[in-house]
Amino acid sequence: MKKIDIKKLHASYKDFDKQNVTVAGWIKSVRNSKTFGFMDLNDGTSFNGVQVIFNDSLNNYEAISHLNAGSSVIVTGTLVCTPENKQPFEIQANAVEIVNATTDEYPLQKKHHSVEFLREIAYLRPRTNLFNAVFRIRSVAAYAIHKYFQENDYMYVHTPLITTTDCEGSDQMFKITTFNFDDLPYTKDGKVDMSKDLFGKKSYITGSGQLHGEAFALAYSKIYTFGPTFRTENSNTKTHANEFWMIEPEIAFCDLDGLMDIEEEMLKSVVSYVLEKCSTEINFLDKFVSNGLRKKLEKLVTSKFTRIDHSEVIKILQKAPVKWEFTPEEGGDIAKEHEKYITEYFGGPVFIKNWPKDIKAYYMKLNPDGKTVAAVDLEVPGAGELMGGSQREENYDKIIARCDQMGVDKSAIDWYLNLRKFGSCVHSGFGMGFERLVMYLTGVDNIRDSIPFPRTPKNCEF
Amino acid sequence: MKKIDIKKLHASYKDFDKQNVTVAGWIKSVRNSKTFGFMDLNDGTSFNGVQVIFNDSLNNYEAISHLNAGSSVIVTGTLVCTPENKQPFEIQANAVEIVNATTDEYPLQKKHHSVEFLREIAYLRPRTNLFNAVFRIRSVAAYAIHKYFQENDYMYVHTPLITTTDCEGSDQMFKITTFNFDDLPYTKDGKVDMSKDLFGKKSYITGSGQLHGEAFALAYSKIYTFGPTFRTENSNTKTHANEFWMIEPEIAFCDLDGLMDIEEEMLKSVVSYVLEKCSTEINFLDKFVSNGLRKKLEKLVTSKFTRIDHSEVIKILQKAPVKWEFTPEEGGDIAKEHEKYITEYFGGPVFIKNWPKDIKAYYMKLNPDGKTVAAVDLEVPGAGELMGGSQREENYDKIIARCDQMGVDKSAIDWYLNLRKFGSCVHSGFGMGFERLVMYLTGVDNIRDSIPFPRTPKNCEF
Repeated sequence: MKKIDIKKLHASYKDFDKQNVTVAGWIKSVRNSKTFGFMDLNDGTSFNGVQVIFNDSLNNYEAISHLNAGSSVIVTGTLVCTPENKQPFEIQANAVEIVNATTDEYPLQKKHHSVEFLREIAYLRPRTNLFNAVFRIRSVAAYAIHKYFQENDYMYVHTPLITTTDCEGSDQMFKITTFNFDDLPYTKDGKVDMSKDLFGKKSYITGSGQLHGEAFALAYSKIYTFGPTFRTENSNTKTHANEFWMIEPEIAFCDLDGLMDIEEEMLKSVVSYVLEKCSTEINFLDKFVSNGLRKKLEKLVTSKFTRIDHSEVIKILQKAPVKWEFTPEEGGDIAKEHEKYITEYFGGPVFIKNWPKDIKAYYMKLNPDGKTVAAVDLEVPGAGELMGGSQREENYDKIIARCDQMGVDKSAIDWYLNLRKFGSCVHSGFGMGFERLVMYLTGVDNIRDSIPFPRTPKNCEF
Repeated sequence: MKKIDIKKLHASYKDFDKQNVTVAGWIKSVRNSKTFGFMDLNDGTSFNGVQVIFNDSLNNYEAISHLNAGSSVIVTGTLVCTPENKQPFEIQANAVEIVNATTDEYPLQKKHHSVEFLREIAYLRPRTNLFNAVFRIRSVAAYAIHKYFQENDYMYVHTPLITTTDCEGSDQMFKITTFNFDDLPYTKDGKVDMSKDLFGKKSYITGSGQLHGEAFALAYSKIYTFGPTFRTENSNTKTHANEFWMIEPEIAFCDLDGLMDIEEEMLKSVVSYVLEKCSTEINFLDKFVSNGLRKKLEKLVTSKFTRIDHSEVIKILQKAPVKWEFTPEEGGDIAKEHEKYITEYFGGPVFIKNWPKDIKAYYMKLNPDGKTVAAVDLEVPGAGELMGGSQREENYDKIIARCDQMGVDKSAIDWYLNLRKFGSCVHSGFGMGFERLVMYLTGVDNIRDSIPFPRTPKNCEF
């Protein structure tokens, strides 16, 4: 008989009442008496598994009774609705085929495992309740992002990963090569001869698709990217990873206010979709990982995001009855402690806009005051900065001047600068770190637990 | 006034009849008489632009009349339905704001440009009709893939790009490093000291997410990946690129027949969606790039894919009245000329299954005959191999034996091999090169024209 996803059974178990079904999956636990037993079974298509009842009329009753967690089985039996029980239905087994019985070597047992231990077995941790919930939300959130942009007529653009130019600066990028490190070719003056490498020059894996995204926005008006990005930061914190996924929308004929409208609408749309599709997972995480998670997400959907200038934020921070570790200063950056305070102060998400130009990038639009740029960071309660964006400098002469002031190598990005001559227009874009969003949506507080196989300094296992 | 996407106007121009609208975009061409002129304008949200009529009551009439292609403008005017004309509506301008006028330096003129020339200005080519069509189909097809898998309850998994293990073999992978090539650290015995690199060992960017995908399939039953992959091949052909996107679904409790069912259903679903959403683009490409494109795609949706053993294909090829460049041989590979013949022979897509084990990978399920593996390639008319998949060897002892026979380094993939001990089951997966699909959907015959910024040997511009 064709097997049925357990998710389908949960969605329409009443239709299957008293019917014969086949499910296949992995055992969470087995408990039994002399003549019958219960098996918690899940196939991972759903957060909730199914309870299977088996009895000693099965000729492999003894073997089933001794199965370890993680064993794979195929169960055929009668689905029976059980409105009086906690679980809405169960399966009374006619046959249990043991596909692969795990031994005691299997590292996941029915007990609490620390997230640190689970990271050491990253290839098995998706089988736990925690990661079942987190990675399903990750998948659903990724789709919600595509859905939002596609339904609003944005083009999805695959910007290149391998690059010789980058908007974040090459000192933060991984170099790539086809050379054998122990047999490098050299030039006459003793340098490694990069002209002999596959691309004929130094190349990197990218830290951002923004520059290429802008080129496409100036053709299609509304585009977004969604792909992996890389940074070489040798930093072991809860929020840094060397490989992460980014969404970078870019919109032509759109100023900073228009950008904030889009960021707000997109985020609300994604959160709503996840609340709708992953209600069980959110409830689990609310209970065991981050109390108040559901309330936080539901509140976000209906709240109006505050929009405030950076300079006003500094004034609020300076007046705050708080002893800061980092003193808030006009023209200065905003620390994590400040982000936290300001979202609590306004009781919700806050757009901080018009930042001091000296702490921001060359491509951001200089405001008429000559001191600030039209940049905006979105701060959300409990996660800090979730998105960073700006109106881009669309004037050729002005962006050239900014490059010169900031020592940016113009030759590597001449094509990008040319966009300012060839049908330039007011345009804006933002970047959202996808792991940051997953952390916000799930309440997990370490980036290592928001991505399937995290890459951090000295950690590239699996 | 808030600007409207030209796509929206095309979708519902009747609702806007006689109304004032604002559109913003880039000029394709301007022609004018003494007192009035026509402007072809597009904002890229739609394949078709809009015709704007402007007259000398506008105080900048002269300037507008002399605008070059590529100039950006904001037009406000009255939308008027024109059922008697070729285009269903036009805009009679009340105001044309010139945002950025291009000079003669602008490389795209209203004439035919070769695809080779356009590759040299990859940052501008999305503004041409050809790439407007190709990259929109690319975007829509990407979404169709997500939609198919998500609606069928697959988990989207972001497998890692940076890796120390790989299913395709490290000789085809780019190495990554944070080292400065001209200041490398060495061990005492004169080797480059990779333990001093960020991850403490040699690391690569991946050629496949399959191994990690399998780990997730054995937790969630049905997963797919969609991300970039890399190969170092120094090969300048129409079908090779060093960076490309892959989709790699993996399904637990699924054998080779089940896999072919999924491949067929998925492909039909994606082609149908593209035909529905990109009808104008398909018509354009059918007319100017690949005659018969629409018919080919429509036929695919309704055809039943042939399923045939590799050994039977060899017999058909051997009997064929064709002088082959490569002689088809039992146990041998199938060349491009053979792929072409076999899809023509059957008049549609063909699954070639059960391949000689010696030309396939270690992880493929050995068939009971001991000579073939449960692998399957999907060949489609006009594009050759579109997908390659297999049932995976799920038995621990057998996969170990295959690794040993084929000289595979087991230590790097011990976690992957362990999956065969921890709840293993029959499982299968396939890979589809996304650019190959885009080429099939658009009829473009060079991979360089199917991806926004192609990376090929000696070519990593932009």
